Amino acid sequence: MVERRKPIWIKEAIEKVMEYKLRGEDELVSIHECDERYLSEPLIADHDVPPFNRSPYDGFALRARDTENASRETPLLFEVIDEIGAGQVSLKQVGHQQAVRIMTGAQIPDGADCVIMLELVREISEAGNKYIEVKRRLQDGDNISFQGEDTQKGSPLIDKGERVNPGIKALLATFGYSQVKVAKKPTVGIIATGSELLRPEDELEPGKIRDSNGYMIESQVLRTGAVYKKYENCADDLESLYEAMKTALQECDILITTGGVSVGDFDYLPEIYKRMGAKLLFNKIAMRPGSVTSCAEINGRLLFGLSGNPSACYVGFELFVKPYLRYWMQSDRPYTRYITGELKMDFPKPNPFSRFVRGKISYEDGKVYAEPVGLDKSGVVTSIAWADSLIVLPGGTRGYRAGDEVDLILLEDQQGSGVPWQERKFSKS
Amino acid sequence: MVERRKPIWIKEAIEKVMEYKLRGEDELVSIHECDERYLSEPLIADHDVPPFNRSPYDGFALRARDTENASRETPLLFEVIDEIGAGQVSLKQVGHQQAVRIMTGAQIPDGADCVIMLELVREISEAGNKYIEVKRRLQDGDNISFQGEDTQKGSPLIDKGERVNPGIKALLATFGYSQVKVAKKPTVGIIATGSELLRPEDELEPGKIRDSNGYMIESQVLRTGAVYKKYENCADDLESLYEAMKTALQECDILITTGGVSVGDFDYLPEIYKRMGAKLLFNKIAMRPGSVTSCAEINGRLLFGLSGNPSACYVGFELFVKPYLRYWMQSDRPYTRYITGELKMDFPKPNPFSRFVRGKISYEDGKVYAEPVGLDKSGVVTSIAWADSLIVLPGGTRGYRAGDEVDLILLEDQQGSGVPWQERKFSKS
Repeated sequence: MVERRKPIWIKEAIEKVMEYKLRGEDELVSIHECDERYLSEPLIADHDVPPFNRSPYDGFALRARDTENASRETPLLFEVIDEIGAGQVSLKQVGHQQAVRIMTGAQIPDGADCVIMLELVREISEAGNKYIEVKRRLQDGDNISFQGEDTQKGSPLIDKGERVNPGIKALLATFGYSQVKVAKKPTVGIIATGSELLRPEDELEPGKIRDSNGYMIESQVLRTGAVYKKYENCADDLESLYEAMKTALQECDILITTGGVSVGDFDYLPEIYKRMGAKLLFNKIAMRPGSVTSCAEINGRLLFGLSGNPSACYVGFELFVKPYLRYWMQSDRPYTRYITGELKMDFPKPNPFSRFVRGKISYEDGKVYAEPVGLDKSGVVTSIAWADSLIVLPGGTRGYRAGDEVDLILLEDQQGSGVPWQERKFSKS
Repeated sequence: MVERRKPIWIKEAIEKVMEYKLRGEDELVSIHECDERYLSEPLIADHDVPPFNRSPYDGFALRARDTENASRETPLLFEVIDEIGAGQVSLKQVGHQQAVRIMTGAQIPDGADCVIMLELVREISEAGNKYIEVKRRLQDGDNISFQGEDTQKGSPLIDKGERVNPGIKALLATFGYSQVKVAKKPTVGIIATGSELLRPEDELEPGKIRDSNGYMIESQVLRTGAVYKKYENCADDLESLYEAMKTALQECDILITTGGVSVGDFDYLPEIYKRMGAKLLFNKIAMRPGSVTSCAEINGRLLFGLSGNPSACYVGFELFVKPYLRYWMQSDRPYTRYITGELKMDFPKPNPFSRFVRGKISYEDGKVYAEPVGLDKSGVVTSIAWADSLIVLPGGTRGYRAGDEVDLILLEDQQGSGVPWQERKFSKS
């Protein structure tokens, strides 16, 4: 029987998924292991930066008032009473016409209130004593980085939900986070369904193809920052698929199946959802590819039924699964980020529904362009490998032309967006 | 003594590094472990795609010539002689006015030469036999995806040196790469130097700060796809630094030190390079920050001396270390990718040398904009966390204004560039 399904809008589908959004648990990891993890608490400065008044240059620390009469014509002599490297602290008190040799980053010694750069003085040694000649007048505070001028103790510097990059890792180290509280990675179960599916290690057989979607989803899951548990491919058999899904649901935080969501006779997902007592959120979306993407909920857990078509499967993950996972890991910008750009070539075929075309972005003279990659034929997976974006062509009665402004969903972006992509009110043509 | 150093241009420094570029070894990993690895051999199609003539839709396979007289007024009856799901092959031969029910992706049965979509026929059951009513004329080849029409067996699909993304992983699975030959990850030794350095787990002490550069470099190394070996921080002591570097050089493929490259009295790197017999490639570059970045070579191995200033250290890695590592891992686009965009705010301070300002890119109406993040003060690490780009302000006598076109080096980009960034011939102002 051909089942009738009512398509819903993309925005609506995303909203239905996000109605069930959850924040996951957190865990402590060593700072060495925190890369690309999502912070589960804000990063707070545990001390002032700089932590003490320090010198931004190599030079000599002295008292500004002693330089009042210094000039090119009347250089003044200062006795160098100590020499301190980075990490050292002088125990001397800088007095009248005295100076302490100081390295970049070192703490300003007591008594001193300014620093003169190394390049601006002449150094003189006389009878075992060292002196410098100062030829200019200095002001109190010259060449001093003051305690707390960059950041004050207790300041929140990075919000929870940010993903650790090299700059954030540097901050964690600076502020003593030898252990970092991060979002625990959700486990995504993956089951590829279809009696036609072989594994990569299998020889081809008549009528069969190797599963690629399951592996592609593995990679999409990892790129999001989650982990996966991949199950054996499942033949188109109601009982075994039901059992596999039941097991996976117990072992994973969410479950993705791929294949088996078309309208053919051999699609058991609707039946399985029913048998499980799962609530169907949607099973058809007004988009191409990916119109037969489905989602169901049971006990607060989501089951995503992605299409068996590779492009549709890919798009379904990016639009619907990724934001759910990112939110789980504390992100407040869980949605795929999108920008606008100019279409570089005609795309004459009209489509009643919004179309997501695998695209490649280029930049020329400060402008954003995008062009479709590959032939965009159903089943051609090569183009997914080259795509860095999805070109969104809103549904309508006409095709698109080079020069048209289009939305571009960024696939490699890690910044995310606080708002999901949605259909424009007026489609261009 | 203040050592005199001759600055060289950025482009020249990159060239000097890349004179010593090497391709690393490769290794076999499971397809489950290949994400974000660099392919060390081209990905070749081991079979045609599609591997057989197949149906892109659910429908009925039949012979086009039998539909010659079919029309809305005179529908023709076809006997359904078999029913095949995906992965199955029909053993029947489709004859005159016969049809085989076929699922999306299934192989076209012998005898049939076209497919009619499920939605376009009426199904009739009569005395245990099934029939369909066909109301239109079909052409030979209608709704058939032909063997090899997407990709032919033996075609190279992805070059070596590409980094595995979800689309490439899907291709690897499709074409039977259960084991994938990838570039072995080079090991990058990291030694943070400076007597002022504490570890993240240490309490602050007067005059001291926690090492952040070493951790930042860890993260930059991982983002590039390499692995790191981090050594204990090293005090400003010639002997211990020499020994630490000698050990690290034996255990790692390249070595990065941070700190100790300024012109202060306590900088031992030049002395250590000499003692090791390393050839100095450069120790000063016409850029800010990072002017005291150094690089030396010994027995074909590179030693990078990055600045102790966090921003300078960061920039030094991105510009000089990253391309070396990417090339090592087989990439032919090892350089950091750059685009142009419009400066969003004034940057009035002129600089004789090219300046790399930590920036954030925004897109509006198809145009690229960038603005500096944070105060860009030396020592402020917060801005590195927020930067997604380096805004390049070429050296000159004037500052920059909002609206000026500038180069933007993309920090999170994984695509890379075949050519390194270089100073523009004419700087704007």
